[in-house]
Amino acid sequence: MSWFDVVLGKPLATSEERAEHIGPVSGIPVFGLDALSSAAYGPEAALTLLIPLGLLGLPYIVPISLAIIGLLVIVYFSYCQTIDAYPHGGGSYTVASENLGENAGLLAAAALLIDYILNSAVGISAGVGALVSAFPRFESHRLLLCLVILAILTLINMRGVKDTGTAFLVPTYLFLGTLLLVLGVGAVRAFAANGHPAPVTMPPHLPMATATVSLWLLLKVFASGCTALTGVEAVSNGVMAFRDPTQKNAKRTLTIIILLLMIFLAGIALLCRAYSIGATDPSGAGYESVLSQLIAAVMGRGWFYYVSMGSILSVLALSANTSFADFPRLTRAIALHDYLPHVFIVRGRRLLYSHGIYALVGFTALLLIMFGGITDRLIPLFAIGAFLAFTLSQAGMVMHWKRAPGKGTHARMVINGVGALATGITLLVVLVAKLREGAWVTALMVLLLIVLMKSVKRHYQSVDQEIAVDHPLCLDNMAAPLVIVPLDRWTRITEKGLRFALKISDHVQAVHVDAEECSDVVKEMWQRNVVAPVSASGRIVPELIFLNSPYRFVLSPLVDYILEVERKHPDRQIAVLVPELIVKHWYQTPMHNQRAQVLKLMLLVRGNQRITVINIPWYL
Amino acid sequence: MSWFDVVLGKPLATSEERAEHIGPVSGIPVFGLDALSSAAYGPEAALTLLIPLGLLGLPYIVPISLAIIGLLVIVYFSYCQTIDAYPHGGGSYTVASENLGENAGLLAAAALLIDYILNSAVGISAGVGALVSAFPRFESHRLLLCLVILAILTLINMRGVKDTGTAFLVPTYLFLGTLLLVLGVGAVRAFAANGHPAPVTMPPHLPMATATVSLWLLLKVFASGCTALTGVEAVSNGVMAFRDPTQKNAKRTLTIIILLLMIFLAGIALLCRAYSIGATDPSGAGYESVLSQLIAAVMGRGWFYYVSMGSILSVLALSANTSFADFPRLTRAIALHDYLPHVFIVRGRRLLYSHGIYALVGFTALLLIMFGGITDRLIPLFAIGAFLAFTLSQAGMVMHWKRAPGKGTHARMVINGVGALATGITLLVVLVAKLREGAWVTALMVLLLIVLMKSVKRHYQSVDQEIAVDHPLCLDNMAAPLVIVPLDRWTRITEKGLRFALKISDHVQAVHVDAEECSDVVKEMWQRNVVAPVSASGRIVPELIFLNSPYRFVLSPLVDYILEVERKHPDRQIAVLVPELIVKHWYQTPMHNQRAQVLKLMLLVRGNQRITVINIPWYL
Repeated sequence: MSWFDVVLGKPLATSEERAEHIGPVSGIPVFGLDALSSAAYGPEAALTLLIPLGLLGLPYIVPISLAIIGLLVIVYFSYCQTIDAYPHGGGSYTVASENLGENAGLLAAAALLIDYILNSAVGISAGVGALVSAFPRFESHRLLLCLVILAILTLINMRGVKDTGTAFLVPTYLFLGTLLLVLGVGAVRAFAANGHPAPVTMPPHLPMATATVSLWLLLKVFASGCTALTGVEAVSNGVMAFRDPTQKNAKRTLTIIILLLMIFLAGIALLCRAYSIGATDPSGAGYESVLSQLIAAVMGRGWFYYVSMGSILSVLALSANTSFADFPRLTRAIALHDYLPHVFIVRGRRLLYSHGIYALVGFTALLLIMFGGITDRLIPLFAIGAFLAFTLSQAGMVMHWKRAPGKGTHARMVINGVGALATGITLLVVLVAKLREGAWVTALMVLLLIVLMKSVKRHYQSVDQEIAVDHPLCLDNMAAPLVIVPLDRWTRITEKGLRFALKISDHVQAVHVDAEECSDVVKEMWQRNVVAPVSASGRIVPELIFLNSPYRFVLSPLVDYILEVERKHPDRQIAVLVPELIVKHWYQTPMHNQRAQVLKLMLLVRGNQRITVINIPWYL
Repeated sequence: MSWFDVVLGKPLATSEERAEHIGPVSGIPVFGLDALSSAAYGPEAALTLLIPLGLLGLPYIVPISLAIIGLLVIVYFSYCQTIDAYPHGGGSYTVASENLGENAGLLAAAALLIDYILNSAVGISAGVGALVSAFPRFESHRLLLCLVILAILTLINMRGVKDTGTAFLVPTYLFLGTLLLVLGVGAVRAFAANGHPAPVTMPPHLPMATATVSLWLLLKVFASGCTALTGVEAVSNGVMAFRDPTQKNAKRTLTIIILLLMIFLAGIALLCRAYSIGATDPSGAGYESVLSQLIAAVMGRGWFYYVSMGSILSVLALSANTSFADFPRLTRAIALHDYLPHVFIVRGRRLLYSHGIYALVGFTALLLIMFGGITDRLIPLFAIGAFLAFTLSQAGMVMHWKRAPGKGTHARMVINGVGALATGITLLVVLVAKLREGAWVTALMVLLLIVLMKSVKRHYQSVDQEIAVDHPLCLDNMAAPLVIVPLDRWTRITEKGLRFALKISDHVQAVHVDAEECSDVVKEMWQRNVVAPVSASGRIVPELIFLNSPYRFVLSPLVDYILEVERKHPDRQIAVLVPELIVKHWYQTPMHNQRAQVLKLMLLVRGNQRITVINIPWYL
């Protein structure tokens, strides 16, 4: 076993495919991290918008959270239906393109591609940001830390999904366990205290109200809170990564994820109200996150607080992994429709779509380097893609049910319709609110990607059209090719080349470029070593051609001559024999000219369909 | 005319060769700069060793300079004889190897190669050092300035020797003119003042004597002064660069150079004594060069002083050019004997041995970068090579006259013998004095170079032996090759490949690597598109081979199979057809797999004599 196998795992045979598939226990870390970690920032985003209302704003969080949970339920059913309808993976791209047409599909594809890359960059930079807040001495190594985490994620993901799930089990379940415990203990205490429990650690006081409530404000709060929904679509994208029974396992995983997320959202909203916890100004000095306040209020600032906060930090950082799980599947799906290079379809040695991983890592690294690994600079570009894909996917499901009429499809259509409407409105609000801050960059990138994907498709179509042939092998004009052999000195290499030429054709030309003015020597050599034996054997004697080269160039006159011969024989294939010396050790290369290599390159660049290069290697 | 032609001059035809040759006027700047610029440091090096003797030491400079001039005369006659004996260029390498055998020749070659590179680096860094002394604000850009001057020298030299001579005419003749004028005026004033002229600007006082004279000290003074002789051999190396009558022009150039150098050495010695000018401590604070003191004493510190000093600086810097003139000729001569790669024999577009220039520039740049462009760090490595080559060349000439007895050869032998003895002693003194300071590096490099050159020769000999063939073309066993065609889908590219295969051989195998488990489709396609038409035409039907690939690798199984077929058919040539898609634009490359390239590479690396690659290009 080589070190390569140790680091990346041994190659997997195609027949081993099933063994690599996962169940719900591994499925939650692989596909659920993105959705579940949303609980750490969704409610906070909503509460932040309620700050101007002061203490009076706090009660609104409960009905709004219930509305978001309601939307989550709708989205849940919608995605269960998608899993049913698309057992091989029904990402937004597939659903949108199959039901809403090519352009909607490409719009969804471009939005998702950009969002996955941003998610990966934001997740890593947020994790590093949290780490840096805890240990300020790492501040100057921010970007390096981001790239190190990216490298670790890459290595883990190159081993395959099953190994990925295993690696993420501990932090994910630590996060889930501690948060559930906090919410449970808090709920019991609130119930015992008739809804007004005494916090162990006092949360910061809420500021005075500076505004009054309005419908537009509540809509914005709802829209911001909806960021808690990002990542929910991951399971439906990756259905085929689950083990048999595939769809059942996928739905089971989705159900657990949604249930946990619902409990988190509801619990956080209710406890925030009970403990009077609101958001603090994120750009202010005394900033403390809502979850931090909540855990401190329920459990105090003991060792448990630090364990919980640590698990939140790691889960945020690891939520980047959702991109690693889904991005390669998405690029494959797009490449299958010829909109991306076919290399994304090829499965690597570990049965993964390796080139998708390479592309994701490359673009994530580029983003991290361009933005210096600072989350704040990336945030304005983020989330638009996710909601665009959401809306398109659910609108696509509406068309799906419309086209497949039957029992119950009308109700399903309505559910998806409501979802599409809600996410569509959220999308518009996000777009309007963030347009000047950076959303225009995302919009522009989406457009560019669509143009790129369409031109890739056009290229593949034109190639297919050009090389397509609908008739069987044509056997007209089977004359042997005209073979051209460059000639210098009489050596074994020359002899081998000429022998090969005479084996495959009766029409052979030897060409000598006379750069050193020694034509007589060559003529004499040719007469003695070639003309004499060939005519004695009764074969057709090859022709000897001399090319002048006043400027001592060897290859240009040769290539010019070959092109001229090609023009003079429009009905013949031209085969150029290139004898090549292969040295035993690389360091012997400078001892020999590289004319064979250059000649092959020149013939490739200047040649055409009827010129073929035959490489005659001579191994020393 | 392209920008390339503007910068480097248009290409020259072989027939234009004569026109590029030079006469004495251009010959002095091209081949004489190294020797003539020695006048700027040779006497100074001798006087520096006389410092401990104080004013009492000064008179010794005259007899020692006369001895050096005597040696110069001997060397002059010796090199005139070399030009007669070696009209195509008789460098130390040629003379030593022809008269003293291979090892002596290689010793001379290695010494000269290293010395030319050091001369180029030292010349440039000395010039920049002088410039930096005059304008201290350039101090921090020392290395950059060195590399800029190197680049300028390279460009000028890539145009050719004639252009080089023209570019260097002005500074060279300015240097010669001003120095001759100073010496003339000084001599007239000294004569008029009965040997004790009054200096215009008073030179620094000589220090008190701290030692007494000894034979060993005088020998060291003589040896140091002999550095004035470096560069004298340049003309004899480059005889063939002169125009007809070649030898006469070369000798005329050498005569002028030696005469000027003799006048300089004698004049400087006499005037130093007359004006009581001695060397100052080179590492002391009040350092002033001997030539600077002399010019100031004779002419004062007016505009003439600055013009003279400027010309000395530029001539020192340009003396690097001697390396550019001779190094490529030397590498060519060595390569002609198979001791260096043959690429050094090839004449470039301007009829120069371009690769010699590239090598010189590369090594000079390396030296300048390694030593930061500081002359002092390079000096200890320098001069050993020159004197080694000197001694070997003159010893070689002794053997030359010994072997060719006739009228006057005995006297000539004596002259060369005296020269060899004198330079040999100088070499020993220099080696002993500088061994610990850095001469050991040069000695080591000389040894390494000799080992390298011997192994290059061995490689060429073994190749020549391997590919040499003394019989005419053998026509036994002329069976057509067994052709292997990789097969995937049925396209025009596949059809073209199969047609070519059937044109050149009746024994064709199509190989399908079954990485995607679709053998039935391929079989059906094969039957319909190939088997049916070929059997209908009465030809031998190609075989279809399936290769399993559990790990989805495509190329390894194919190459394994090809090697297996090769083993099974020891009497046949194997031709592997590689169809290749050539895209129109480079940016279309990522859209297609690069398997054709990789397959060709794998076959080159793992293949053997009987495996031939036929490249079938398909241009989009």
